[in-house]
Amino acid sequence: MPKPSPARLDPANYPVAIEVQTRFQDLDPLGHINNGAMAAIIETGRIAFNRQVGVDGRDRKPGERWLIARLEINYVAEGHYPDPVTIGHGFGRVGRSSWDILAGVFQGDRCIATADCTIVLTDADGAVAIGEDQRARIERYRFAG
Amino acid sequence: MPKPSPARLDPANYPVAIEVQTRFQDLDPLGHINNGAMAAIIETGRIAFNRQVGVDGRDRKPGERWLIARLEINYVAEGHYPDPVTIGHGFGRVGRSSWDILAGVFQGDRCIATADCTIVLTDADGAVAIGEDQRARIERYRFAG
Amino acid sequence: MPKPSPARLDPANYPVAIEVQTRFQDLDPLGHINNGAMAAIIETGRIAFNRQVGVDGRDRKPGERWLIARLEINYVAEGHYPDPVTIGHGFGRVGRSSWDILAGVFQGDRCIATADCTIVLTDADGAVAIGEDQRARIERYRFAG
Amino acid sequence: MPKPSPARLDPANYPVAIEVQTRFQDLDPLGHINNGAMAAIIETGRIAFNRQVGVDGRDRKPGERWLIARLEINYVAEGHYPDPVTIGHGFGRVGRSSWDILAGVFQGDRCIATADCTIVLTDADGAVAIGEDQRARIERYRFAG
Repeated sequence: MPKPSPARLDPANYPVAIEVQTRFQDLDPLGHINNGAMAAIIETGRIAFNRQVGVDGRDRKPGERWLIARLEINYVAEGHYPDPVTIGHGFGRVGRSSWDILAGVFQGDRCIATADCTIVLTDADGAVAIGEDQRARIERYRFAG
Repeated sequence: MPKPSPARLDPANYPVAIEVQTRFQDLDPLGHINNGAMAAIIETGRIAFNRQVGVDGRDRKPGERWLIARLEINYVAEGHYPDPVTIGHGFGRVGRSSWDILAGVFQGDRCIATADCTIVLTDADGAVAIGEDQRARIERYRFAG
Repeated sequence: MPKPSPARLDPANYPVAIEVQTRFQDLDPLGHINNGAMAAIIETGRIAFNRQVGVDGRDRKPGERWLIARLEINYVAEGHYPDPVTIGHGFGRVGRSSWDILAGVFQGDRCIATADCTIVLTDADGAVAIGEDQRARIERYRFAG
Repeated sequence: MPKPSPARLDPANYPVAIEVQTRFQDLDPLGHINNGAMAAIIETGRIAFNRQVGVDGRDRKPGERWLIARLEINYVAEGHYPDPVTIGHGFGRVGRSSWDILAGVFQGDRCIATADCTIVLTDADGAVAIGEDQRARIERYRFAG
């Protein structure tokens, strides 16, 4: 069974940390944060990360869109309420037209989940090459592990 | 960039189909089904699949639990509202103490997402071997691709 | 403490019934449908009701919008999963520029909640008078209690 | 059409303020915070309010439960993301076995919603009288309007 590498469980390896509140409604009958709710929490962190590293759409040409192609979540430990989570973020693999955002979700000192999200840049004709601004941003905020 | 194999896009390869309604609240400002909402839709389908193939907890020993270890969603096309989705399910890889549930989410004839969910059987001491009932069930409802 | 009138607990009084699936994620740690999730379930029913009675935006003038001004939910009994709910709908009070949609949420024979939703028709200058089409529709699908 | 009183729109009238983050997933295709999502945001605030004023279950006798009997939300203005909301809370009407929690949801200086939530104390035989601890707490944190 595949598991996240030890480097992914260390908050120090993620250059940007974002705090996200948990909600009572995130809990399910097992009393822990529901798997689907975790996806919403991670999305909230990822959008704040994009804003913090300077993504604001200005370096996208007209008609270009970012699409989420893939989201992989590894559930490492149970998440609780009402404590917030701190989500570390950094860029991982980068290709011609897509890149990965790597995240580690921590509650207190404990990693409760990791997430790998693949974003692809597209226009009406399909995938297009990443611009210089986004490529520089990716190099600046690399996952360190 | 990894993509789901063509076999995963064919509804005929999934032995059990479950219909799940979409909700207005699943939509986000882009007008399509939100990525996090897709995780909740997929969870609803997976639980119905487990029930339909006969999982009811009776073949778990006291103290045994199923945990979701990993969820990977590949977003293939935009999902819309108010049409329901039909989610095909079948078992994939199986190990000593864990197994994968493979799902394909279809709207009309179009695959909009695939999901791979790894479940692990645990007790207080960690992962434990899968029982005969669950192993037989896995063989009976295999993904065909 | 105010309570819904007995007429609101009788499904026969609602002219239009809509079935809405429940989701595992609707449950909270108390094992019943969460209060906030109930609001999402009710919204899904209300939008389907509007569509079924013929609301499609064609009788709104350019710049006109429907806004939800008020939502009141009375929780009558606990809601469960995985059974779907059947939501009865009918129009209640109607004024110059606003109207109420009355809903009763049933699971099996039991009413688990009622909802009163006030909609107001507005344009850039504020509330505007309801058109003849919508007024006729309201008379045709009145709550009978 | 009923509207919240002006006193409900003034944050100074609520003795306890709780900040709640908004999430991207709270938005709907109209680009504002969805009505159902607002109910989840309000619930998160209410639970934090209960904790802050000292509710911790110790003054409930065995078998006693708090049930939400009614939730009324008035939507005053559109809510936006990513700004958080500040929710003012105070106790309103109190009876023998039930009480109201009044909330005002503010974004910047603007009230975007008010909420009235009726809680009832029950045991296996139905509604029971509120204890002295909770009654004192209610007097201490009254809505001032």
